[in-house]
Amino acid sequence: MTHCSRRARLGAAIGAAGLEAMLVTDLVNVRYLSGFTGSAGALLVYADDRPAVLATDGRYRTQAARQAPDLRVAIERAGARHLVARAFVGQAAGTRRLGFEGHVVTVDGFDTLYAAAADGTELVRASGAVEALREVKDAGEVALLRLACEAADAALSDLVAHGGLRPGRTEREVRRELEALMLDHGADAESFETIVAAGPNSAIPHHRPTDAVLAAGDFVKIDFGALVAGYHSDMTRTFVLGPAADWQREIYQVVAAAQRAGCEALQPGAGLRDVDAAARTVIADAGYGETFGHGLGHGVGLRIHEAPGINAAADGTLLAGAVVTVEPGVYLADRGGVRIEDTLVVADTAGQAPDLLTRFPKELTIL
Amino acid sequence: MTHCSRRARLGAAIGAAGLEAMLVTDLVNVRYLSGFTGSAGALLVYADDRPAVLATDGRYRTQAARQAPDLRVAIERAGARHLVARAFVGQAAGTRRLGFEGHVVTVDGFDTLYAAAADGTELVRASGAVEALREVKDAGEVALLRLACEAADAALSDLVAHGGLRPGRTEREVRRELEALMLDHGADAESFETIVAAGPNSAIPHHRPTDAVLAAGDFVKIDFGALVAGYHSDMTRTFVLGPAADWQREIYQVVAAAQRAGCEALQPGAGLRDVDAAARTVIADAGYGETFGHGLGHGVGLRIHEAPGINAAADGTLLAGAVVTVEPGVYLADRGGVRIEDTLVVADTAGQAPDLLTRFPKELTIL
Repeated sequence: MTHCSRRARLGAAIGAAGLEAMLVTDLVNVRYLSGFTGSAGALLVYADDRPAVLATDGRYRTQAARQAPDLRVAIERAGARHLVARAFVGQAAGTRRLGFEGHVVTVDGFDTLYAAAADGTELVRASGAVEALREVKDAGEVALLRLACEAADAALSDLVAHGGLRPGRTEREVRRELEALMLDHGADAESFETIVAAGPNSAIPHHRPTDAVLAAGDFVKIDFGALVAGYHSDMTRTFVLGPAADWQREIYQVVAAAQRAGCEALQPGAGLRDVDAAARTVIADAGYGETFGHGLGHGVGLRIHEAPGINAAADGTLLAGAVVTVEPGVYLADRGGVRIEDTLVVADTAGQAPDLLTRFPKELTIL
Repeated sequence: MTHCSRRARLGAAIGAAGLEAMLVTDLVNVRYLSGFTGSAGALLVYADDRPAVLATDGRYRTQAARQAPDLRVAIERAGARHLVARAFVGQAAGTRRLGFEGHVVTVDGFDTLYAAAADGTELVRASGAVEALREVKDAGEVALLRLACEAADAALSDLVAHGGLRPGRTEREVRRELEALMLDHGADAESFETIVAAGPNSAIPHHRPTDAVLAAGDFVKIDFGALVAGYHSDMTRTFVLGPAADWQREIYQVVAAAQRAGCEALQPGAGLRDVDAAARTVIADAGYGETFGHGLGHGVGLRIHEAPGINAAADGTLLAGAVVTVEPGVYLADRGGVRIEDTLVVADTAGQAPDLLTRFPKELTIL
């Protein structure tokens, strides 16, 4: 069972860090380790083979039993507190080290946990321990990410095929139709608020759709994704409502070349900032370096933004099996901008190309 | 200016608590106090008349200047840390008490703030200080909540008027159409994931829409809301796809009577648990007390759930100008359930009826 093996990996990691158990309170992490999707819950995972315990409240009794049949479930309103109190019950006296998520537990919440802990329990930070596991996706996760990307691909294809991107429509109308089409193609929801940015608005990296009307000669930049079983897809395509001007063709080709360079640099073991640089250099060499003000990409999974960040300040290397975006852009204020973004799986071995999950074409499309 | 007077109220409250300033890091609270809606930012508010400082990163330079023209804006990536460091720069030496949100700042985040604080700065919990102000809505907030409720009312009216609730449709289809209609009526988005629960699913208090098909004789329970400028509406209506059975008419009338009793009990100064009891007693007296397992209502505003909670365990009283829901239900497992929910503004003076914001009819509607 996948969740079981994820917990075993966490158990090994915290054991190596000298912890006997870990309290997980981030709900996305709880889901990752247990399958439980309720809006309240906490999970206690041991470094050894003692079974994990999920605590949640009475609303989720049935759901917890169904989603996490291999776990012990405690129905407790104050679940995290309960788990801390019972973590080492029945064990011999002595100091017991219990990890907690210092990047999730609030200062007030920590007081509650501290007060509940039995004598001898030492609360120790284990911030990011679960996120570190989540950085590399397992086969089930890649399958869900693939489904999410396919739903987004199919929705955008439908939208374009029946003329959904045409002068006279508003950004909001396009957003709404695209989101509805994703649901038609099996998405549970959109994975974030869809960006539809027409004309000069396309120069704003994260524009919220307005009643601005699409017009001939506009760039139309669409950044969107589908949510499937908790997994997020993320893709950006930029179209031109014809006729295309020379400056539009030029920056489109620059961004497309930078995006290809970024994807080619996605090798296991590559330095994160080197991947960023591979794309950024193409844009800088073309004279548009100043206009590309954001990072090249980010991990994507149970959250739309997760580790690793791919940017000029990033330390560390790309891990085999990570799923990341590559999304360079050129933005010319008051004129328009282009971003092209894919989601890809980093290959297992060096020299192998990454697996492209977002397959909608990237050639300049003039509508 | 509204945000200015909100900050003045906060300044008075923290001054009374012996603090010289307060760091606000909850983004909803930042928005409430400043108008700034970016996804990263922190606010420093002083107890005296020194101007507040908003810190955010470079992406939001233009937006911050536009949304919060009366504030000093510091462009700093690590905004909260920056504000703590500069809070008392240039002042005479001595201990300075700086409040922070202990229910928001994480254990790791606190370390960062602590390390940044200048000598003599004492970090003091002021958890919930802003939320306490938010419990009573000002005129601008009520106006936005009214718009949000109107958008939801109009969307549901449209849905029913053109036969959107009919046998053969799925819960998901109804959800999608209702959410699209809210956008048509001016909503920025739905205020939470719409619940559409048909037949036996209506007995699940918080059911997620599925491909279940609406059928003759079903209850159809719809719990939904619109988001307008950050403010959430919240309303539930339950319909019957005819013919209606006697048991359906009976529990509908019980819930409707309980809901009226709850609304009538919404008086400024009333005990929160007494308001809950006013509705709960009606359901218990009819013999359905066991089936009503959740609280009667909650505050609603910049969050869909905020203070006060109206339930059997709640301490405290209802404040004049609070905006709350009243939402009793009766749920018969495997058969069906009814919930009726309104959003109302508590009146300023005792004896005055609350202001009903959700105006869609509540008589039993057989479609």
